[in-house]
Amino acid sequence: MGRETYWKSDPDELLRVAGDFRLADRDTGATPGFDGDKKDGQKALAEGAGILADLQERLFAAGTHGERRSVLLVLQAMDTAGKGGIVSHVVGAMNPGGVRYAGFKKPTPEELAHDFLWRVEKRLPAAGEVGVFDRSHYEDVLVARVHELAPPDEIERRYRAINDFEREVSESGTTIVKVMLHLGKDEQRDRLQARLDEPDKHWKFNPGDVDERLRWDDYQEAYQLVFDRTSTPYAPWYVVPADHKWYARIAVQHLLIDALESLNLEWPEADYDVEEQKARLAAS
Amino acid sequence: MGRETYWKSDPDELLRVAGDFRLADRDTGATPGFDGDKKDGQKALAEGAGILADLQERLFAAGTHGERRSVLLVLQAMDTAGKGGIVSHVVGAMNPGGVRYAGFKKPTPEELAHDFLWRVEKRLPAAGEVGVFDRSHYEDVLVARVHELAPPDEIERRYRAINDFEREVSESGTTIVKVMLHLGKDEQRDRLQARLDEPDKHWKFNPGDVDERLRWDDYQEAYQLVFDRTSTPYAPWYVVPADHKWYARIAVQHLLIDALESLNLEWPEADYDVEEQKARLAAS
Repeated sequence: MGRETYWKSDPDELLRVAGDFRLADRDTGATPGFDGDKKDGQKALAEGAGILADLQERLFAAGTHGERRSVLLVLQAMDTAGKGGIVSHVVGAMNPGGVRYAGFKKPTPEELAHDFLWRVEKRLPAAGEVGVFDRSHYEDVLVARVHELAPPDEIERRYRAINDFEREVSESGTTIVKVMLHLGKDEQRDRLQARLDEPDKHWKFNPGDVDERLRWDDYQEAYQLVFDRTSTPYAPWYVVPADHKWYARIAVQHLLIDALESLNLEWPEADYDVEEQKARLAAS
Repeated sequence: MGRETYWKSDPDELLRVAGDFRLADRDTGATPGFDGDKKDGQKALAEGAGILADLQERLFAAGTHGERRSVLLVLQAMDTAGKGGIVSHVVGAMNPGGVRYAGFKKPTPEELAHDFLWRVEKRLPAAGEVGVFDRSHYEDVLVARVHELAPPDEIERRYRAINDFEREVSESGTTIVKVMLHLGKDEQRDRLQARLDEPDKHWKFNPGDVDERLRWDDYQEAYQLVFDRTSTPYAPWYVVPADHKWYARIAVQHLLIDALESLNLEWPEADYDVEEQKARLAAS
C-alpha cells in the first residue's frame, strides 16, 4: 500500500493555523488525516524518505543552475516534544550536503548586542538548500514573553518585525514552513520521567526543563499569540499533534514533501553542447 | 554475520599513508581488508550506520557536558570519485543536528583577500560535532599547484601552514581523518560518460570536468606531494580505492567509527540530583 493511501485527507490543510484557531482546542494525541497505526506510520515514513531525498536533490540541482529557490523548516516546541527526532528521522533522510541545519540556543552576548533577527538572518538557507531552524527567532517572543526578558511593546514590535522579515525571505525565493510540535502536558511528564529513569538519558535532562514546565500555561498562551500574529499566507504555521512521535514525523515529512513538490522542480537542462562534450571526453 | 567478520584486516592500517607510500602503486579497484562482495558491503554499511549514529550521539552528548572533543572528516578526490555518495550514505546516517557539513567551492573575492586558511577555520566543528569538509584547504595546494595559481614558494609555505594549523586543531581536541578517494582514470571516463548519457544527470556535468581530467597526471603528482608533506601522526591521510563505490563507503565509515571509538565516550553523568528532580517533576 502506497504512502498516500494512508492519508484520508491532506494533513497540510488539517494542521494549518487559520481563522479562529485555538491551540487549547487541539488534541495532542490525535493523528489528523492518517488512517493507520504506528506500524503503518513507519512504513509511510520509510517510503516518504526516498521521495523527500529525491525532491531535495532536484532543489539542490536547480540551485547549482541559477534557480533561487530554497525551503526553510522552522521547528518550535516545548521540551521533549520531539524536535530532535524530526531532525534525525525526517531531515536526516536528505543529503547533508544540501541541508543547512541551525540550532538556536540562548543568545550569546554578541548576539544580544544586535537585533534579535541578526543571528537568524545569517543562517538562512542559500539557493538550492533546505534550511532547518531548531528553535528560532520565535524564542524571542516565547521565552522572552514568558520570562519578561523584554517589555510588552518590544514584544509587539517583534511580531511585526518577524512578519516583515519572513515576507522578504519568502519573496526572495524561500518557501517557509513553520511547525509547532504540540505535546500534551502529561506526555511531557512521562518523557521527562524516562530521561530521569534511564542513566543513559540523564544528559538530556536539565533541571531548567522543570522550571519551564511550571510555566506551561504561560507558554501555551504565548504560542497562541504567536499564531494569532504571525501565521501569514507567505509563512504559515502548522500545529502538529506530537504525543505520537510516529505521527509527528510523517506529518512534518508530508509538509516538507508538499513544499518541495509545489516548486515543480525539473532536472536542469545542460547549458553546454552534450555531443561536443562526449567527443572531448572520448578523446581524453 | 556481523560487520566486523567481513574485515580480514583493519582497513585503517591498510589505507593509511605511511613510509614510502606511492599513490601510483595503489590499485583503485581493490577492496583492501574486506572479504566480501557488493552485497556484503551493503549489509556491512547498513549495520555500521547504526553504530556510527550511536557513537555520534555519544560525542554530541559529551559536547553538551563540557567535553571538548570533535571529529573532522576531510574529503578530497578527483571529480566523480564519490564524495557526494560518502556524504549522503555515510555521513547521512548521523543526526544532522550534530554534523557540520562544509562544502568548499572556488574562493570568493572576500576569501581570496584573506589567507587560504581563513575560510576553513571558520567552519571547523565545535565541541561535540562531526565536521565534514567536502573539499578543503587542500585545494589550495592541489588546484593551485596544477594551475599555477600561486608561485612554488607559496605552495611550500602552505604545506607548512597546513601542518601547523592541523596540529593546533588536533591539540585542541579534534580528531582529524583525511581521506582521498582514489579513482581510476578509466572509471572516471565511464562515470562522466554516464552523466552525459542520462539527461537527468546533465546538471552534474561541467565542461570544466574534462579540462581537469586532461591534467590527470599533474593532479596525481600534486596528491603525491600532499601525502609526502602533510600526512602526520596527528592528521593522517587515508587513500581509499574508489572504483567500487560500495567499498569506499564502508571503508570511510570504518575510519569514522574507529575515530569515534578511540575517544572512549561514555554517556555523561547527571550534574544534578536525580531523586530531587524526580520529586520536582512529580509535583509539577
